[in-house]
Amino acid sequence: MSLIEDLNWRHAVKAYDPTKKVSKENIDKIVEAARLAPTSSGLQPFRLIVVGDQETKEKLVKGALNPDCMRDCSHVIVFAAWDRYTAERIDKVYDFTTDERGLPRGRFSSYTDMLKSIYLKESSEENFAHISRQAYIGLGLALAQAAELRIDSTPAEGFDTQVVDEVLGLDKHGLKSVSLMYVGYSNPDGDWIAPMKKVRIPTEEFVIEK
Amino acid sequence: MSLIEDLNWRHAVKAYDPTKKVSKENIDKIVEAARLAPTSSGLQPFRLIVVGDQETKEKLVKGALNPDCMRDCSHVIVFAAWDRYTAERIDKVYDFTTDERGLPRGRFSSYTDMLKSIYLKESSEENFAHISRQAYIGLGLALAQAAELRIDSTPAEGFDTQVVDEVLGLDKHGLKSVSLMYVGYSNPDGDWIAPMKKVRIPTEEFVIEK
Repeated sequence: MSLIEDLNWRHAVKAYDPTKKVSKENIDKIVEAARLAPTSSGLQPFRLIVVGDQETKEKLVKGALNPDCMRDCSHVIVFAAWDRYTAERIDKVYDFTTDERGLPRGRFSSYTDMLKSIYLKESSEENFAHISRQAYIGLGLALAQAAELRIDSTPAEGFDTQVVDEVLGLDKHGLKSVSLMYVGYSNPDGDWIAPMKKVRIPTEEFVIEK
Repeated sequence: MSLIEDLNWRHAVKAYDPTKKVSKENIDKIVEAARLAPTSSGLQPFRLIVVGDQETKEKLVKGALNPDCMRDCSHVIVFAAWDRYTAERIDKVYDFTTDERGLPRGRFSSYTDMLKSIYLKESSEENFAHISRQAYIGLGLALAQAAELRIDSTPAEGFDTQVVDEVLGLDKHGLKSVSLMYVGYSNPDGDWIAPMKKVRIPTEEFVIEK
């Protein structure tokens, strides 16, 4: 199968079958696709919180725009972004990278100095807008990976980030939730969008050629 | 091949071979993956500008952080986001969607009213932060599609958006550039990162299980 076939197969599922669970092996593959996502300067400024525990999902229900999806999905994967860039975080990533590549630490210091000179003077809001974008690269790839495995999923915004952050204790990790991804198997009785045609704007409107 | 193999194969290419061009068929596939990207409420609030013309690429060089990539790549794909949400734009998408599904226009009006009540009172900056994230879902999928085709690519930020927007006349379309994606074939002589190990933070650090 190809990525385009996978993307045509998937849709944002509206109801899940609570009796069907996604295997750990497949959850790991979905996470791995997000981990491999390219990010700006390779900083990977987001983390995934994988919630399979029913009790925790129930606590998250009150923050969810789709409470039934939260309750009935197999797992919810929370995409959470760094609350801001810091010198320590940037250095930690680059120290790890140089170590892994057998290069001396500081090998990319002129580059990391440049990053710090840009990001550290920005407001938290400016930082967070940039960081959140990177998380969405990972979100797209995680959705594609679920589709490749023919596992249903739903990307979801519009939730109460305060509830999610608090239930999961994200502030302790310096993280803020940016998107949810419900994962599981569709319940055809409630998944009203499933029989509908997938609609995307026409290519000639989507693309401008120069 | 699998998505994970494709993502492990790719890297952010640092130098392109100017003599090698990507076929129109393959560019179309890369664009199609981005067009199929899921977006918040299905609004698809971004467009792709595909630049294969050398003269236009030369004009973009002065705005590029990687001028050699801009000059030598086969195509640069500019991801450009709506400058903001408007009632007209939201209605246009939903009218098209209901038409395509054979539903009466206005079938989702309570939903689109809710969207308008949220987005239209936000500042352009708040809107644009949200819209840009959606474009990055498409960016991730376009990068994955290039990798599936074993075509090299580089996602690139840090460019002068004013230059890019002006050269491409994006304001006329109500768009603002958010990311570049260089596409082509690596020049192994200049692509210094190619022989280096791909580094990602360890899974146990990337994922928090609950």
